[in-house]
Amino acid sequence: MRYTNLARFGLGLVGLAVVAIGAALLAKTAAAEDAGDVAQEARKNFEPLPEHPAEKPASPDQVSLGRMLFFDPRISDDGTGSCVRCHQPALYGADALPKSLGLHDKRLARNAPTVLNMPLQFKVHWDGLFDTVEAQATKALLGAGFGNADHAAAVVRLKAIPGYARLFSKAFPGEADPITAENWGRAIGAYERTLVTPSRFDEFLRGKKEALSQTEQNGLRTFMDRGCIQCHSGVGIGGDAFEKFGVVEDYWQQTHSQEIDKGRFNITKANDDLYVFKVPTLRNVAMTPPYFHDGSVNSLADAVKIMGKVQLGTDLSPQEVDGIVAFLRALTGELPEEFAKAPLLPAAGFGAGAANAADDR
Amino acid sequence: MRYTNLARFGLGLVGLAVVAIGAALLAKTAAAEDAGDVAQEARKNFEPLPEHPAEKPASPDQVSLGRMLFFDPRISDDGTGSCVRCHQPALYGADALPKSLGLHDKRLARNAPTVLNMPLQFKVHWDGLFDTVEAQATKALLGAGFGNADHAAAVVRLKAIPGYARLFSKAFPGEADPITAENWGRAIGAYERTLVTPSRFDEFLRGKKEALSQTEQNGLRTFMDRGCIQCHSGVGIGGDAFEKFGVVEDYWQQTHSQEIDKGRFNITKANDDLYVFKVPTLRNVAMTPPYFHDGSVNSLADAVKIMGKVQLGTDLSPQEVDGIVAFLRALTGELPEEFAKAPLLPAAGFGAGAANAADDR
Repeated sequence: MRYTNLARFGLGLVGLAVVAIGAALLAKTAAAEDAGDVAQEARKNFEPLPEHPAEKPASPDQVSLGRMLFFDPRISDDGTGSCVRCHQPALYGADALPKSLGLHDKRLARNAPTVLNMPLQFKVHWDGLFDTVEAQATKALLGAGFGNADHAAAVVRLKAIPGYARLFSKAFPGEADPITAENWGRAIGAYERTLVTPSRFDEFLRGKKEALSQTEQNGLRTFMDRGCIQCHSGVGIGGDAFEKFGVVEDYWQQTHSQEIDKGRFNITKANDDLYVFKVPTLRNVAMTPPYFHDGSVNSLADAVKIMGKVQLGTDLSPQEVDGIVAFLRALTGELPEEFAKAPLLPAAGFGAGAANAADDR
Repeated sequence: MRYTNLARFGLGLVGLAVVAIGAALLAKTAAAEDAGDVAQEARKNFEPLPEHPAEKPASPDQVSLGRMLFFDPRISDDGTGSCVRCHQPALYGADALPKSLGLHDKRLARNAPTVLNMPLQFKVHWDGLFDTVEAQATKALLGAGFGNADHAAAVVRLKAIPGYARLFSKAFPGEADPITAENWGRAIGAYERTLVTPSRFDEFLRGKKEALSQTEQNGLRTFMDRGCIQCHSGVGIGGDAFEKFGVVEDYWQQTHSQEIDKGRFNITKANDDLYVFKVPTLRNVAMTPPYFHDGSVNSLADAVKIMGKVQLGTDLSPQEVDGIVAFLRALTGELPEEFAKAPLLPAAGFGAGAANAADDR
């Protein structure tokens, strides 16, 4: 901004042709230096995804098995539920529903967050119920999305698909009976930890200023100046803390939520946790409406406006909202190939029951 | 086989070292000529997939739109149903269920056949209810898999996703209001017509004898000699005729089906159509258990045995069954990239209703 006056000053001194060139040059310099400032400040608040992912916490065999299990509906009670049910590749790892729908028309309590970039976050679920994706996955076998009566029922289903026997043995070598619900969760987790989505913003943070347009950089500036980074920072641009939803004003006044969700309070019963939720990551936010823990808002612009009001107590101007939305769109990353593409599952059909065994394929 | 004696004859005439080489050479020639015979006979009964697909019946814009619509659950009544529900890429275009499960736990009448290679078939559905995939798709919007009350309801859902407006306009240029249920079906059909799966058997039919192992060739020979080709022939290895299931013996005596399905009779009420079904394509049959119109049998070997009994009135020997199964596995084709990989859908969440408009992304 401070270069703008200098650019104007130049106008009075030289002829029109020269001015045009000079102004353009100055404007360019100004933009570049401003981008430099923005980038510098951004680097204080955000981290790019590592260019070369750190050493894998799990073996490739676990990742590859986990990918199959993630897509396999046959481990659910009615043969239709899988992780993909709520985390669809075509919908950027979410399901576009306000609240997910489990088996037997059972509505889940909250909006399904995208599974992408989950490993960047400090807790799983809106209320932080789980510390790890592995724990969440293992428990999910018993939830509305899978509907198994108990883990033993899920294991029976796994064992009815002969092809999984050798895949579990390979992924968990040395275990006498590797087909367990815990190993199911470990494999799913190993796979999910690979699901990160590099975006243009990561390139920008690593020094490629032109990776973001001027509009997006302006939006980033607004995002930082207005205080959104108080919660949405770090490598996940969120996802690393709990925060009350509705700091200044009750959230439902703006979201028009039909139910009031007490958030983490339901777990801890601590007054400090009333209406407290995990701050969601904003990576891929433009691709995963509807918004908030209850999916009560469809439009990203509306969601930004509401955050200004209820978290910061401010009315963001339409220009500010547009800028922030432009910046948020630049957080849309590349879908991992191993997520976009379905794996091929060991063939086995669930016909007339155990007496009618499946082939080993 | 007729060369086997000749090979033995050579043994008495020359020394051992020479014999070893000579026998090997003769055996190779014998196998090659037998393969030649099998291939020659196979070419009389089957056709390979065209190496270069004929000119597309639809525009690339229709195919590309159809691919999105195929994967989009938001056009269904509860936001969870799509073509993928019963035709999953990870399960070779089927769903591994005996009978598919629609919305609200509504069980469908029959087993979902794979969507792959549907364009090679003369009718759609087990009872041949539809002449084209386009007609089937359009009607499916109102079936248990999508649950729309009427086509207008489906169109409302399509129009609530702003990104589809320009995609329909591009796919159906010149139409004033291109977002219709019929165009939805046309686009889906255009996409489905691209879903063919070249296999090793196609290479074999085009002259590459080594594309099938000797075991598989023997199985092919049995498949032809035993009369399976009376129904399963042509480019689809089935899929081009109706046939009674249970020519020699009532099918349910062998499948132990819990319900007796009258097949095409339910449509025509003609006695000749009692227990008559479309002959299914056998392409990818090894990857799409369970088997038959009611998914009553899990094992491909069992399915082959049952076909021998109820269609041909014969007890195939275990060796014959193994051979046929080996041949059938060679019909597993390559999954089309544009099917294995989910498309990215225009983002739009279905939040609190029409008043809460989605962004145009």
